[in-house]
Amino acid sequence: MRRKIYVDSSVPGVRVPFTEVELGSSPGPLGDEPNEPVRLYDTSGPGSEPEKGLPALRRQWVLERGDVAPCDGRAATARDDGRGAVRDTARRPDPFPGAARTVLRASAGRPVTQLHYARQGVVTPEMAFVATREGVEPEVVRAELAAGRAILPANVNHLESEPMVIGKRFLTKVNANIGNSAVTSSVAEEVEKLTWATRFGADTVMDLSTGPAIHTTREWIVRNSPVPIGTVPIYQALEKVDGSAPDLTWEVYRDTVIEQAEQGVDYMTVHAGVLLRYVPMTVNRVTGIVSRGGAIMAAWCLAHHEENFLYTHFEELCEIFAAYDVAFSLGDGLRPGSVADANDEAQFSELRTLGALTEVAWEHGVQVMVEGPGHVPLDKVIDNVVLQQQVCHEAPFYTLGPLTTDVAPGYDHITSAIGAAVIAMAGTAMLCYVTPKEHLGLPDRDDVRAGMVAYKIAAHAADVAKGHAGARAWDDALSKARFEFRWEDQFDLALDPETARRYHDETLPAEPAKTAHFCSMCGPKFCSMRISQDVRRMAADDPVAVGLRSKSDEFRDTGSQLYQAVGRPS
Amino acid sequence: MRRKIYVDSSVPGVRVPFTEVELGSSPGPLGDEPNEPVRLYDTSGPGSEPEKGLPALRRQWVLERGDVAPCDGRAATARDDGRGAVRDTARRPDPFPGAARTVLRASAGRPVTQLHYARQGVVTPEMAFVATREGVEPEVVRAELAAGRAILPANVNHLESEPMVIGKRFLTKVNANIGNSAVTSSVAEEVEKLTWATRFGADTVMDLSTGPAIHTTREWIVRNSPVPIGTVPIYQALEKVDGSAPDLTWEVYRDTVIEQAEQGVDYMTVHAGVLLRYVPMTVNRVTGIVSRGGAIMAAWCLAHHEENFLYTHFEELCEIFAAYDVAFSLGDGLRPGSVADANDEAQFSELRTLGALTEVAWEHGVQVMVEGPGHVPLDKVIDNVVLQQQVCHEAPFYTLGPLTTDVAPGYDHITSAIGAAVIAMAGTAMLCYVTPKEHLGLPDRDDVRAGMVAYKIAAHAADVAKGHAGARAWDDALSKARFEFRWEDQFDLALDPETARRYHDETLPAEPAKTAHFCSMCGPKFCSMRISQDVRRMAADDPVAVGLRSKSDEFRDTGSQLYQAVGRPS
Repeated sequence: MRRKIYVDSSVPGVRVPFTEVELGSSPGPLGDEPNEPVRLYDTSGPGSEPEKGLPALRRQWVLERGDVAPCDGRAATARDDGRGAVRDTARRPDPFPGAARTVLRASAGRPVTQLHYARQGVVTPEMAFVATREGVEPEVVRAELAAGRAILPANVNHLESEPMVIGKRFLTKVNANIGNSAVTSSVAEEVEKLTWATRFGADTVMDLSTGPAIHTTREWIVRNSPVPIGTVPIYQALEKVDGSAPDLTWEVYRDTVIEQAEQGVDYMTVHAGVLLRYVPMTVNRVTGIVSRGGAIMAAWCLAHHEENFLYTHFEELCEIFAAYDVAFSLGDGLRPGSVADANDEAQFSELRTLGALTEVAWEHGVQVMVEGPGHVPLDKVIDNVVLQQQVCHEAPFYTLGPLTTDVAPGYDHITSAIGAAVIAMAGTAMLCYVTPKEHLGLPDRDDVRAGMVAYKIAAHAADVAKGHAGARAWDDALSKARFEFRWEDQFDLALDPETARRYHDETLPAEPAKTAHFCSMCGPKFCSMRISQDVRRMAADDPVAVGLRSKSDEFRDTGSQLYQAVGRPS
Repeated sequence: MRRKIYVDSSVPGVRVPFTEVELGSSPGPLGDEPNEPVRLYDTSGPGSEPEKGLPALRRQWVLERGDVAPCDGRAATARDDGRGAVRDTARRPDPFPGAARTVLRASAGRPVTQLHYARQGVVTPEMAFVATREGVEPEVVRAELAAGRAILPANVNHLESEPMVIGKRFLTKVNANIGNSAVTSSVAEEVEKLTWATRFGADTVMDLSTGPAIHTTREWIVRNSPVPIGTVPIYQALEKVDGSAPDLTWEVYRDTVIEQAEQGVDYMTVHAGVLLRYVPMTVNRVTGIVSRGGAIMAAWCLAHHEENFLYTHFEELCEIFAAYDVAFSLGDGLRPGSVADANDEAQFSELRTLGALTEVAWEHGVQVMVEGPGHVPLDKVIDNVVLQQQVCHEAPFYTLGPLTTDVAPGYDHITSAIGAAVIAMAGTAMLCYVTPKEHLGLPDRDDVRAGMVAYKIAAHAADVAKGHAGARAWDDALSKARFEFRWEDQFDLALDPETARRYHDETLPAEPAKTAHFCSMCGPKFCSMRISQDVRRMAADDPVAVGLRSKSDEFRDTGSQLYQAVGRPS
């Protein structure tokens, strides 16, 4: 049986949610032997009525630090939802109806970021929360944050979020992208996708809306999100100038960042590494520039023949981010969009620039992670994280897949889960999921689920391979349940219990089959698990088998001679 | 547009099927530029009416060698379908109704195997066929076969099959398992699964039936299969002794192998490495013995306290296999069934024994591949193929996945596609697919498709990573079509065109959307591909951009100094 529990952290009153799976007992020689319950990381949040939003879990923690003050905040305007919204008021969705909210901002001269506190040696309630969540000492969290090897995205205006940490020392995280486009989706659908994403384990959610009502959609999402929210502010800025990249200005962008920071966005993708001189490097690529933000900035640079304003104004951006504890997700605007373009000059030139920008952000006390590709053939995947860790001074890497082949549209959650598992094993801290709809359309709820499950698999496979403390225990508990035909335990422990149960029931639906010592794959007579249990019993009970066991011990003692003795059959 | 074509090989009259994808032209500065059609490996066969079976493509090739003679063959008995079939005649399916068939066997003293001919320096029509299929010189195929580094499974009684080769020098192959169990499935369903498997790219199909009518089901399958068929004869042998492992005898097994060889089975899994002394090594595993064949032989060994009869009679088995050119698939009966049990003493002890047996088979001129796991954490995957290649003298490795985590029943096509791609990149020659139903039930038609697509992705990702000649061309053609908004070409080139088209149409169903320069993901204004094309045009047309290009050349020339120059933004 699955149930939600709360576990105390090192800070009084700070309690951490887990899913606890209670297990049946195992048959033992002296009767039933109980199995310890298994605790699983839980991102689903406390649940909400979308119109009210989630409770402000972090309010007290933030206010008690005394480093923020209420500010008037920027009044939302119709233009925030794009010029289209100004013209076409009928298409505007309802504003978020929840309680009025005080906008917070750093008090004059006061640093507020988790990076700042970590450097000061302070374990914040947020750090204590994630330490318990990860099963490590709070000092480990603090030290990794202080070194910049991990980030804890926690905007002072997103009080609803349950803290989490992104860093290679911790469990591999998964981000789910949601958001509408000009062609499709409503606000209610986006909130539903958010809920499905966190139900299936999304550690953060990016709202990539590009359609109408960007501001309003985001308000609904942030207020209902138990996980950090990321955005790409250039999308909204472009809407404000009616989709014309050359009309973008630093001022429009800056105001958009402030607007989003006030709403509570926890991290923002900034394509500050798309430098004017790198753009021509993409001309002979098979797929040019495939990052939307990268393409927008490249078009701006070329139109003005000026350097990227995100680069030239980067320090001002750092000051804004610092005032709300927004983390940078330094965008890879020149990432490859096909395996042909992987690891090329454009991609790696930009990456080195992101390394330089990482240091600038750190000087301002701002948390940073760095985004990575994209489409990369399997033999070139690990080079990406090795180079990123080197040139970005071990700032966390956050990769989109990578997709290991371009030939399977409709299945890119799989082409990319392969690359994702490998790059995470090699040190990527967070994976951006890819859904089956990638390259074809916007994901619906079912696509969100398919993408999430594929990526939770990739992340967990990497954690097991990295030997992350506790990761393997989940596998072992499920395998033990499988071997002992504890079907209900097997379903409850499954990454997606509902699907596992449904597949089993398609061929053996009857309730007694849930306790049967076989399944429909082989039927009762052929079950290797059952035969194997018989073998185990024979080896335990039978004098002959006991003889075998001591023989086996003897073979073990002779070591490799055993193998040399294995010659031709007689 | 997709169409089937036939390409001449180096042997007159031997023609090889491909799927040819005709592509639209690309917009160029001087008008439309045509794109070369793309040829894809095609396993779907000529198509058949199940009641008639496929034409005997190889009849002439086999007969012209003059090394086989008709033999009476073993008359099928009701017992061949298991004792249950004898008792319950009502449950027996219709016998295969196709034309009567002459059973062939080596003429006295004549070697007939492809390995034999390769060693003699002879390029058989089968070798010429696969050389064209793989895009290599026939001599490459012959040399790899002669060295035992590849096999060409081609029973002289499976004249319907289109030759294929399994070896690390060639494209990575995928096997699909089908077959009924005591609980479920009919003959017609199994033939349908065969057809779906080959339609989605199965290079071989294993019939793992364990239910009633094993013999009859297999006859229908072999007669309709354009790809080599593999089996695990111990399953049928066990049925003949009514499911009681201790009642198995060498004689029952031997007769079963002959029966199946006469039907045309191209390779057989033989668990000859499950030695008596290895069985106790599995007692303390989390999941004991999970191979059905392994569990059956372990139970037999323990019950009799005798050595595995497959091991003690291995040379007799070689003589039978040699007479029909049946290839060994040396089974890993002690493979791990959970990540906890991976790479343990039991598994690797058996593997070393399989290495010794490989040499025995080669002495008899019999082709050999070796089976591998199973469940292996990602960090231990590559060790498996490295050790196998070493101790089995580079005989082809044929692995089941491996699954990289145990926690996702219902999604094991994904948990295992990750391991499969990695192990194939490192040298595994054939991957046995895993379907979403693994551990839960028998796959249906849709599961076969899901498993096949996941594994074709894994295999192709590995081929691209290995730099297999021609593999990347497919990716590049699709990516170019994507960048140029040639939607129909993109669908036609997709691994699963129907699914790609359907996903696209879910959000943009109208026919004009197929020529639109955007999709529903971002809508028209936000399309990075479109903006990127604008960037390309600007760089080509604009004097400013031309200036940029020469600047870029200059940066390229200064090499790494470029990167050093990337400092703090101003």
